[in-house]
Amino acid sequence: MDIELQRVVDGVDVAREEVLDDDRLEDWPGFFVEKGRYRITTAENYERGLPLPIIYADSRAMLADRVSALRHANIYEAQRYRHTVSSTLVERVDADTARATSNFQVVRIMHTGESMLFASGRYLDRIRLNGEGGEAMFEERVVVLDSRAIDTLLAIPI
Amino acid sequence: MDIELQRVVDGVDVAREEVLDDDRLEDWPGFFVEKGRYRITTAENYERGLPLPIIYADSRAMLADRVSALRHANIYEAQRYRHTVSSTLVERVDADTARATSNFQVVRIMHTGESMLFASGRYLDRIRLNGEGGEAMFEERVVVLDSRAIDTLLAIPI
Amino acid sequence: MDIELQRVVDGVDVAREEVLDDDRLEDWPGFFVEKGRYRITTAENYERGLPLPIIYADSRAMLADRVSALRHANIYEAQRYRHTVSSTLVERVDADTARATSNFQVVRIMHTGESMLFASGRYLDRIRLNGEGGEAMFEERVVVLDSRAIDTLLAIPI
Repeated sequence: MDIELQRVVDGVDVAREEVLDDDRLEDWPGFFVEKGRYRITTAENYERGLPLPIIYADSRAMLADRVSALRHANIYEAQRYRHTVSSTLVERVDADTARATSNFQVVRIMHTGESMLFASGRYLDRIRLNGEGGEAMFEERVVVLDSRAIDTLLAIPI
Repeated sequence: MDIELQRVVDGVDVAREEVLDDDRLEDWPGFFVEKGRYRITTAENYERGLPLPIIYADSRAMLADRVSALRHANIYEAQRYRHTVSSTLVERVDADTARATSNFQVVRIMHTGESMLFASGRYLDRIRLNGEGGEAMFEERVVVLDSRAIDTLLAIPI
Repeated sequence: MDIELQRVVDGVDVAREEVLDDDRLEDWPGFFVEKGRYRITTAENYERGLPLPIIYADSRAMLADRVSALRHANIYEAQRYRHTVSSTLVERVDADTARATSNFQVVRIMHTGESMLFASGRYLDRIRLNGEGGEAMFEERVVVLDSRAIDTLLAIPI
């Protein structure tokens, strides 16, 4: 693991966190390459190799559609997230690509002020180091939730 | 973001965390410059630009007064904090100053042993890189709480 | 604190977290030197200097025994951990050894899907930088729990 690579990977992930936590969801698809994949699954399904993601998208356009649907459903104002990401491991795959894994926790804050530990798990990422405009971007992010109890409550991307 | 700068900023913040979590509150004002500002507000007020901080101090002496008041109110023994700080972004302003933002969570542990996720939010800092004795110190820390539900419970600084 | 040293210490700790969170407990004793010590205590006992650890082991063999006992007690499937480690401070002791302290939180996820903030506290570590096979390894890890309310519930190592 080299320090410069870690810095690039941390940078793209922290910027992505800010966008989600600040409710600037429209900016979120821009962290993915055009054919970027995003998948939320549970640890149970992941370990059993079950292809049953809770959420699945395989392009930036699909991610944008999802955000748009969220805005129309008008539930996004009722809650906010606060991410904590830690224990990131980065490994270079080739000159253009890195793999990264990290632990996350998400606290959810309701409009009423009530807050709770909402989700925890592991990010499994494949990152293109020089995407459009020279920016690092996600080719794939797999979100592995520790608990299956969250399935029906997911609104904002994790 | 350069690595040396990040290291300096992380260093002052981790030292500050230790002092709060170890209940050495008397040492906490020393992390601020003499005219240092400390403000706790909510995300709601911050976004609306409302100048209604929950707590406000604009000098090290005011921070020391606050700690002294806490000790006399004698509530500090009943609880402890445990901070988690993550996702720090640092940016140099000029040769002497940096800006930093980071996410935090605070767990509160009561004397009975009961513990809970007490607060989450974002630190917005302005840091003097060479304060007294060459130490990095806070010129300003704004604590933006995610939830407004915490207001009346704040005792120990966040 | 030098960056290379921090990297080595983070590396061994993140690898250890992965093993615990992925339920690969049999690999956990391998992060300790042969005469490695592991102790879980509470902040209260630690501060009073009381030699009353909740869990104590002073060799890799004892740690392996503990894991083996856990497997036979057959409670390990019912729960998982997710660690968050932050605010690590590293200090070189001599050419072969470093001291490190860090904050941790552990979320526990039950088989039912229910998850909760289970434990928080501080790791106090002594690390051999060139253990067997050139790997960094724990000579000692003291786990100081913030709350004493957890004592009887501990199954998986923290």
